[in-house]
Amino acid sequence: MDDVCRNGSANNDDANIISSSNTPYDEKERAHFNRIVSAFRAYRAFSLLRIVNTEKYFLSLPVNHRALLKSFRDNLDVIRTCIEKNNNIIKLIVKDVAYMFENVNHTLTCSTNQEEKGGVHQSVPSMNDQDKVQVTLKQFVRDWSEEGAGERRTCYQPIIDEILAHFPAHTCAPHDVKVLVPGAGLGRLAFEIARRGYTCQGNEFSLFMLFASNFVLNKCRDINMYTVYPWVHQYVNNMRLGDQTKPVKFPDINPSVLPPNAQFSMTAGDFLEVYVVENEWDCVSTCFFIDCASNVVAFIEAIYKILKPGGLWINLGPLLYHFSDAPNEKSIEPTYEEVREVINGFGFKMEKEETHVKTTYAQNPNSMLKCEYESIFFVCRKLSEESNGPAASTGDTASALQGEDDVLMQNGSR
Amino acid sequence: MDDVCRNGSANNDDANIISSSNTPYDEKERAHFNRIVSAFRAYRAFSLLRIVNTEKYFLSLPVNHRALLKSFRDNLDVIRTCIEKNNNIIKLIVKDVAYMFENVNHTLTCSTNQEEKGGVHQSVPSMNDQDKVQVTLKQFVRDWSEEGAGERRTCYQPIIDEILAHFPAHTCAPHDVKVLVPGAGLGRLAFEIARRGYTCQGNEFSLFMLFASNFVLNKCRDINMYTVYPWVHQYVNNMRLGDQTKPVKFPDINPSVLPPNAQFSMTAGDFLEVYVVENEWDCVSTCFFIDCASNVVAFIEAIYKILKPGGLWINLGPLLYHFSDAPNEKSIEPTYEEVREVINGFGFKMEKEETHVKTTYAQNPNSMLKCEYESIFFVCRKLSEESNGPAASTGDTASALQGEDDVLMQNGSR
Repeated sequence: MDDVCRNGSANNDDANIISSSNTPYDEKERAHFNRIVSAFRAYRAFSLLRIVNTEKYFLSLPVNHRALLKSFRDNLDVIRTCIEKNNNIIKLIVKDVAYMFENVNHTLTCSTNQEEKGGVHQSVPSMNDQDKVQVTLKQFVRDWSEEGAGERRTCYQPIIDEILAHFPAHTCAPHDVKVLVPGAGLGRLAFEIARRGYTCQGNEFSLFMLFASNFVLNKCRDINMYTVYPWVHQYVNNMRLGDQTKPVKFPDINPSVLPPNAQFSMTAGDFLEVYVVENEWDCVSTCFFIDCASNVVAFIEAIYKILKPGGLWINLGPLLYHFSDAPNEKSIEPTYEEVREVINGFGFKMEKEETHVKTTYAQNPNSMLKCEYESIFFVCRKLSEESNGPAASTGDTASALQGEDDVLMQNGSR
Repeated sequence: MDDVCRNGSANNDDANIISSSNTPYDEKERAHFNRIVSAFRAYRAFSLLRIVNTEKYFLSLPVNHRALLKSFRDNLDVIRTCIEKNNNIIKLIVKDVAYMFENVNHTLTCSTNQEEKGGVHQSVPSMNDQDKVQVTLKQFVRDWSEEGAGERRTCYQPIIDEILAHFPAHTCAPHDVKVLVPGAGLGRLAFEIARRGYTCQGNEFSLFMLFASNFVLNKCRDINMYTVYPWVHQYVNNMRLGDQTKPVKFPDINPSVLPPNAQFSMTAGDFLEVYVVENEWDCVSTCFFIDCASNVVAFIEAIYKILKPGGLWINLGPLLYHFSDAPNEKSIEPTYEEVREVINGFGFKMEKEETHVKTTYAQNPNSMLKCEYESIFFVCRKLSEESNGPAASTGDTASALQGEDDVLMQNGSR
């Protein structure tokens, strides 16, 4: 089995999104899993219904208006075709999700297969879940397309460069350097780190992302074999139809091609629940992640604990707190100034810090609306407990890593 | 009476937002009016409740987390103070709104006064309406603050420059040139056009904007006499507390200072219903407006009809169709390519056209998130019916205007 996705339960039973036992908690997880599968399956109907409604309104317009919009209905047909093609990708994404976790009971598949046949549990998909399906399609651009190269250069490359600088091959065996990427999304950053020889694990909470990363990492075995229409749901701020219906091919590289002894894995689950073993990681790399917390202090604390003394936390991203103003959610939203105090307060030593780092996130390059984050980028070190003084040098840290046991669940073919 | 706001009903009884008669339709309008007043009045309680909830969550956090966020509660108190100060402005905004329309029955005031005393009709404010109150506060920055000067330079100045170029004082009497600004917001663009001697009328549909424009245009009689905290509701992407709580003074110029014979007015109501008299306007200037339509073709048609033959339409903005994806709303969203075809189809001649014009809209200058529109800017001319050939030259157009009767309801003091 060559899948790189596994469930967080290998580390901690509470961290499961999907579990194999039959406690009430499992039922909740199973329902959540099925809800996300249903959301993907509802994509086509939901997306086409929007066009039906637009067409209905169009047909109610005065005849001279319709005459002036002469290509409007043809354009809707082009959009329809793009949605059908996206749906082909979505069918591939959800096809084998019941089998995606190495360590989860496969009886799951029964319920998903039944759904496929129009059976049980066809809940009405929420707008919010449909938004997430659409966001997932855009993630293929960011992480796995040629079009996303610029975005990856600004968001991922600074992190990779720091890892290469702090853990260079001439002073340490990269294979012995354990790097964790919480909030891994579709896995490209974690993949790129593993590709450079480091032992890298991505962690992701969202099943939308996990289904899609499972597809791209484990099912795509050639370059640009699939096409997605990531901007087709953006009906506003388009200069021309071609901008809305632009195809994007993926993956830009073969995700199965890694060095022979590369260690690369993905876990599913809540970062705070999955990662509880202290002093385990040489490096934690977070990219557009820390603002996914209800309480960012808990994230910083967890990162501090799981890092080995002398280990590095590399972070890049804004502070778009995800639970801010979300209905029925709790959230605190400290400013960067406050976040910085917390980082120092836990005992991190800030070794590098840049602000106003211009970055985008799944930006449609042809949209009339362009959004840009002036991100924070920093590298900080967990001070060694003994000294509690200046951080160990890169050389010291690297040598301390050699001879560590690899506790990762390994994937056969890599 | 020196108010520059009046209700659209002066032109068309159906265009009223507020009406003086007692038909069932009027009741609906009155309910709408009261709803907006209630939304402004609910601002304080709604905004402070959010802080109470954040504080409650903060107090539930582990003691060491709270200790690390040492300034967090003090910061919430600073935010509270800003909300209180914003509420002082809001009280001034809604104070006399019952009297703001020259042509509307003032018995209205009874119901608003009763509300003020905690009486009738205290409906629960919607999140959406509270968002609009917050957006209204930001409009003071865009339209009437020194901080908004850059935004006005990119959004308003190109339009003003075109008016000055096409209707120069040496070939026409600016006072005889009638300029309409649909979607006038807080009125600055219309004010600037009137300040240059043209007869200018702004039209606005939103009562949120109308209440605020009535306040700034008719109640502010000095420079920077008021302070607003426009970014205080942005809890995400802040570098430091001072960015969230930054005060902005307004107005940057005295809105009551206009040339002695300037003609400046504002109408309330739906552009499509208020403006039905054909061949009336020398120039229609739209800035971030045409995408406010369910059916943009109807807006373009109306602009064409109300312009005099040879008249100019100047437009700047993106295509962020406001009703796209709004629940229970109808919308078509033609691309700019399609919009352009419609413009030509109605008989406009495009005389100038620029794309990718970089513009922002009430952008918080210190936010970690920056959004920019690559707007469309164009000038097109309604061809003279006789010739249906090349547009009349500026000189011809201007001389044709001279001697026109002024049909605007005049405001005494201007």
